[in-house]
Amino acid sequence: MDKIQSTVISTRIRLARNVKNLPFPNRLSGEEGIYTLLAKVQKTCDALFPNKYYKIDGMDRYESESLVERHLISRNLQKSKYGGAFISESEDISVMVFEEDHLRIQSIMRGFNLENAYNAVAKIDSELKKNVEIAFDQKLGYLTACPTNLGAAMRASVMLFLPGLTKLGLIDNIIMKFQDLGMTIRGIYGEGSKAEGYVYQISNQASISLSETEILNKIKKYVMQIVDYETDAREKLKSSLGIDLQNDIMISYGILKYACKMSSQEFNQNLASVKLGVALGYLNLDMDKLNSLSVLTQPAMLCFLKKKELTPQQRDIYRAEIAKSMIG
Amino acid sequence: MDKIQSTVISTRIRLARNVKNLPFPNRLSGEEGIYTLLAKVQKTCDALFPNKYYKIDGMDRYESESLVERHLISRNLQKSKYGGAFISESEDISVMVFEEDHLRIQSIMRGFNLENAYNAVAKIDSELKKNVEIAFDQKLGYLTACPTNLGAAMRASVMLFLPGLTKLGLIDNIIMKFQDLGMTIRGIYGEGSKAEGYVYQISNQASISLSETEILNKIKKYVMQIVDYETDAREKLKSSLGIDLQNDIMISYGILKYACKMSSQEFNQNLASVKLGVALGYLNLDMDKLNSLSVLTQPAMLCFLKKKELTPQQRDIYRAEIAKSMIG
Repeated sequence: MDKIQSTVISTRIRLARNVKNLPFPNRLSGEEGIYTLLAKVQKTCDALFPNKYYKIDGMDRYESESLVERHLISRNLQKSKYGGAFISESEDISVMVFEEDHLRIQSIMRGFNLENAYNAVAKIDSELKKNVEIAFDQKLGYLTACPTNLGAAMRASVMLFLPGLTKLGLIDNIIMKFQDLGMTIRGIYGEGSKAEGYVYQISNQASISLSETEILNKIKKYVMQIVDYETDAREKLKSSLGIDLQNDIMISYGILKYACKMSSQEFNQNLASVKLGVALGYLNLDMDKLNSLSVLTQPAMLCFLKKKELTPQQRDIYRAEIAKSMIG
Repeated sequence: MDKIQSTVISTRIRLARNVKNLPFPNRLSGEEGIYTLLAKVQKTCDALFPNKYYKIDGMDRYESESLVERHLISRNLQKSKYGGAFISESEDISVMVFEEDHLRIQSIMRGFNLENAYNAVAKIDSELKKNVEIAFDQKLGYLTACPTNLGAAMRASVMLFLPGLTKLGLIDNIIMKFQDLGMTIRGIYGEGSKAEGYVYQISNQASISLSETEILNKIKKYVMQIVDYETDAREKLKSSLGIDLQNDIMISYGILKYACKMSSQEFNQNLASVKLGVALGYLNLDMDKLNSLSVLTQPAMLCFLKKKELTPQQRDIYRAEIAKSMIG
């Protein structure tokens, strides 16, 4: 299977924008500007894509948590008083209002999709500018609540599946190497750099004095390098472990297919093992479907799908049911 | 599923017989009587059932070991100088010569089959007596090399699958209780009373001053008692563990279906778990087929099936292949 397809899970581009002459969200308190801005953003979004507005205040905890799990809103927004997000029906676009900045325009797409994701946010950005005056400084670029976001105020993130580099113990070197090159790599769903499920996110550290194109080119180049390192690592793993590796993978497949309950951790480990099996050609399954499973089986997502709070035991059972039905 | 069928694996009856005026096997050394007896036994067996003679001396180690694994010969016979066995084509009858006694006539049958197994050995015994004069004492009964076998010189053994009693920690009490009643219960393929795969063998301790019918009635009654205890234990297990038990069972099923290699221990544990699943109605598989799997996947049997010595790694891989093909 294609090395990019078996390594890059998804691509996300996020722009930070603030409105001229309106205090940053952490200083806001009931200004009329809040509602004016909300109305203008809504008008812009409605004109561009079918969407729904999710107001954080009053939302069920599991619903807002499930939006976090789907990366449609941030942890930060979840805590905000006035915050909310306009989310497209297909869930590839989310415009957060009153997060750390007034506006966070985000596009998230499957696979390695920098251009499309960028075009989506750029379009919204340019349409918004027709209705809203954005805070911009000739020298500093877009003004943002946190100085690390100044400049293009753009963060490009790519989610990577790196079982080879992780299992061979090479991931920490990779993290350091790309940190020196201005990138941040961190494990997802795990502590420190230890990624449960071998999933890591790479993103640009800063965007000051860089154009959008420069950021995109840089991350594109680095992701391709990591994909090559990972491909080599998988080959090494396969030739050194052989049937032991295949056995672990096939047992994980058997567990995903037949378990009656699974904790999030067990599930992620077995899913990662099965995904590695697909990448190495031991199993013939749809990688996109497997990637979507890791989102669907997150704790709040399970509650969201059942439209109610679930106990941990209920979640573990439901998680196993979903795995079974999607693994076939 | 039927409680006897899900608990009793197989039934074995063994008669010990010695020829008058011939030294016991441990005192034999090249006497002409050896060959005379062999010829007479062969004649009797040939008249009764299609068979093959397996001479221990010169046999490949794995072949004799695979006969032990199938319970067709004893460990004791494997070490004997003149020993051998006439084994029926269907492998339900084995007449060992020059084991501890001159003759050990054995029938082994699937399931709970005391009468049929007894009739099979009794028939061979009575036919043999037409050709061979058997050592018999009015007071002691059949004379045997070891005094514990005197009397009817019959041992009836029943192989039992007791996961419920084992998991509930009740098996040691059961073993003691039936020991006091003249029975021996021991774990198969494990140390002490700890049976890998929850398989135990119950047999009568002695046969002196007991008739064949008394032995059969006694063991029949006790086996039925144990079957009832086990059935209760399984119900308790099911209601107390519920989905946790079902989950363990289904994971074992997944492992048997998909593993690429399995040690004997792993295999036996997972097979036992799957058999418990069938007994509890979680899985719908053929119990006889599962029971035969535990014989087929023993180390020497695997070599025997491949007609050559295999390394442990080769055995583990072949064991997984057989499991996969038979579990479907």
